[in-house]
Amino acid sequence: MTQQGSISAMHQAEFERQWDVLTAGVAEVVPLDEFKQKLLHAIVSQTPLRVKLGLDPSAPDLHIGHTVVLHKLRQFQQLGHRVQLIIGDFTGRIGDPTGKSATRKPLTPEDVVRNAQTYKAQLGKIIDIENAHIVYNSQWLAQMTFADVVSLSAKTTVARMLERDDFQKRYTSGQAIALHEFFYPLMQGYDSVQLGSDVELGGTDQKFNLLMGRMLQREYGKDTQVALMMPLLTGIDGVQKMSKSLHNAIGISESPQDIYGKTMRIGDEQLSSYMELVTSMTAEEVTHTVQLVATGKLHPRDAKMQLAFLLVSMYYSTEVAQQAQADFVAMFQQRTLPETMPTYVVPQDVLCADGTVLLTKLLVVSGLQPSVSEAKRTIAGGGIKYNEIKITDPGHTLVIASGDTLQVGRRHFRRLIRTPY
Amino acid sequence: MTQQGSISAMHQAEFERQWDVLTAGVAEVVPLDEFKQKLLHAIVSQTPLRVKLGLDPSAPDLHIGHTVVLHKLRQFQQLGHRVQLIIGDFTGRIGDPTGKSATRKPLTPEDVVRNAQTYKAQLGKIIDIENAHIVYNSQWLAQMTFADVVSLSAKTTVARMLERDDFQKRYTSGQAIALHEFFYPLMQGYDSVQLGSDVELGGTDQKFNLLMGRMLQREYGKDTQVALMMPLLTGIDGVQKMSKSLHNAIGISESPQDIYGKTMRIGDEQLSSYMELVTSMTAEEVTHTVQLVATGKLHPRDAKMQLAFLLVSMYYSTEVAQQAQADFVAMFQQRTLPETMPTYVVPQDVLCADGTVLLTKLLVVSGLQPSVSEAKRTIAGGGIKYNEIKITDPGHTLVIASGDTLQVGRRHFRRLIRTPY
Repeated sequence: MTQQGSISAMHQAEFERQWDVLTAGVAEVVPLDEFKQKLLHAIVSQTPLRVKLGLDPSAPDLHIGHTVVLHKLRQFQQLGHRVQLIIGDFTGRIGDPTGKSATRKPLTPEDVVRNAQTYKAQLGKIIDIENAHIVYNSQWLAQMTFADVVSLSAKTTVARMLERDDFQKRYTSGQAIALHEFFYPLMQGYDSVQLGSDVELGGTDQKFNLLMGRMLQREYGKDTQVALMMPLLTGIDGVQKMSKSLHNAIGISESPQDIYGKTMRIGDEQLSSYMELVTSMTAEEVTHTVQLVATGKLHPRDAKMQLAFLLVSMYYSTEVAQQAQADFVAMFQQRTLPETMPTYVVPQDVLCADGTVLLTKLLVVSGLQPSVSEAKRTIAGGGIKYNEIKITDPGHTLVIASGDTLQVGRRHFRRLIRTPY
Repeated sequence: MTQQGSISAMHQAEFERQWDVLTAGVAEVVPLDEFKQKLLHAIVSQTPLRVKLGLDPSAPDLHIGHTVVLHKLRQFQQLGHRVQLIIGDFTGRIGDPTGKSATRKPLTPEDVVRNAQTYKAQLGKIIDIENAHIVYNSQWLAQMTFADVVSLSAKTTVARMLERDDFQKRYTSGQAIALHEFFYPLMQGYDSVQLGSDVELGGTDQKFNLLMGRMLQREYGKDTQVALMMPLLTGIDGVQKMSKSLHNAIGISESPQDIYGKTMRIGDEQLSSYMELVTSMTAEEVTHTVQLVATGKLHPRDAKMQLAFLLVSMYYSTEVAQQAQADFVAMFQQRTLPETMPTYVVPQDVLCADGTVLLTKLLVVSGLQPSVSEAKRTIAGGGIKYNEIKITDPGHTLVIASGDTLQVGRRHFRRLIRTPY
């Protein structure tokens, strides 16, 4: 390792420039010191860092929460480092050997290739996919024998595996952990051994797996990687981690209108993290925008429009984004809502387990309708609007975001507030 | 499965004959009912049972405790069933991948072959080795890929593995369990899948592993094996399980004099289990001998001589056994010990962790010598006998068995008693 004392001012300046970019928005780096040394060494020796990201090989259906690590990867690329994208096709081809999960059917080689193409198209919107090193981990994992697997497993202990949060919870609560599940972190870690990764990216929920790679590299006598963890993006409900199953996600393949409209629904307090984590805005640009909003020079709604515009541009084009913006403005200008209206805090127990709520139920609990049957009649009669859109299905189900509006006839309104708990 | 109602009297009689032989001396059969059905089916369909025994491939150094299962195997053979001896060379070739155990170096293919020859020679003294099906499990295990291992591991859960006594103890006490250790029961169990075993033999300490084989056979859609467990033989100290490291074992490769002499040291209460478990005596012969002793018609010492004679005959020859017996009688007739002498109960805290004790220490605590230095002088001067043999090494270390004698000069004696706790 290069000693800090012996480096030139030019290298030092370059190091500081890169350090500021690469650590911006990061949740945690383990170990931070080693990352410093590695980056410095890369600069001085003009050897790019090998920066790894593992990808799930099942059919990709990315939302912008998934792109947080991709934006960080892009920064590494822009600074001249080398990106390693590992497609975990080996596990995908195995599927779920217990046969219990219908959704984890084994992928055929054709599935894997097809999914990889989709990945490349989607990832190419953020990173420089042509200059990324894309590898399939079946390349080495499929060749391993039972004896190799025994050697690999001998590098860790049962207690160590059970330290992983989800394993620990399941073990102590008596939920079954099929033994082969212990292999997945080992496989991911072994990929790092094979690839000689210097840095591995992931969300904070990946800490255990990232450090497993580090441990295995050490055990196999290799240089160890640094775990660089990004925060988990909060969904448009402002409460939970973005997830398709929580109905709070913005999918990168959704329509321009949906991406734009959903982005406009995030809370003011989410603005800066979204700008920092899921756009290509620099740290300075983010800080600048945040200051404008804080000092009242920029309306939060306008800042969100800027964000929504950036996102649609990224996944479609500037033209499409301009159109989506025009559509939104037109709708906004036509709005017939009063400036102020009574708010209604939606109680948690009104929501279903998946976070949704029946429109009829909402109308009754918020006091806008006297009974469910009355609510159904009013809906069917065209008397109900949600976020200014007429709803005519009496069985309609909603996902509420704070700020959503509920309207009965011309004169009765509620602005809904959803609380975290 | 054949219904009991439809079988002939001849088959029923044959079943009862075999049942009595095969269940004699057995500690536990799981499940007992299935064993009954399998045996009946074997007799009616004239299809021999496939009876499996797994063998450790490391250098064999058998003691008679190891032969308990072999005598049971021999009975199966004599009744026309087929014996499967599995040499676990696959694990032997891996050795200890953590590198922590110096004693578990990987075996070379040559080591495995050499050890197998030794096994055959030793096992051939008890079972009909020519008619046993001997297989090496590397035949199927070495060919398994990572994907196969994942499928195999998916058949069990982490919690289930941690139910095994030794794993449970180590996990709860914070002692490391290297992850690959979980594979050994899976490998042993998978051997049963490959071999289609009907019955697997083992000591009671093998219950978990034997039932793992049964579970895996079921998971792989095969007929399930029955676990037939034999008791663990108590060593010549009458207290602990026979084990070389506890210095209470009778090795089958020891000299005829040692086998004979050590057998004579077992307690009267051990006679019947030794006769039943480590000789070829039938259940009737054992019962008869036990009755003769109980009714005073046979002196326990003579019964032990009969047992010692049988053991030496088995591992050497009748001629050698006759000589060993003649030597013992001559020594016994020449004995100069008084008929009665003071007893001394050896306190546990006098013993070292491995069960041994320094002769000098024993002389002092039993009151035969005033001090350690005095004891050393007396030993060096030839004044001490242990079991009528002069000991002249002042650093001599002993393993005490109840009944052993300690003598100072011509007139001072102690008969030693060793308590279980």
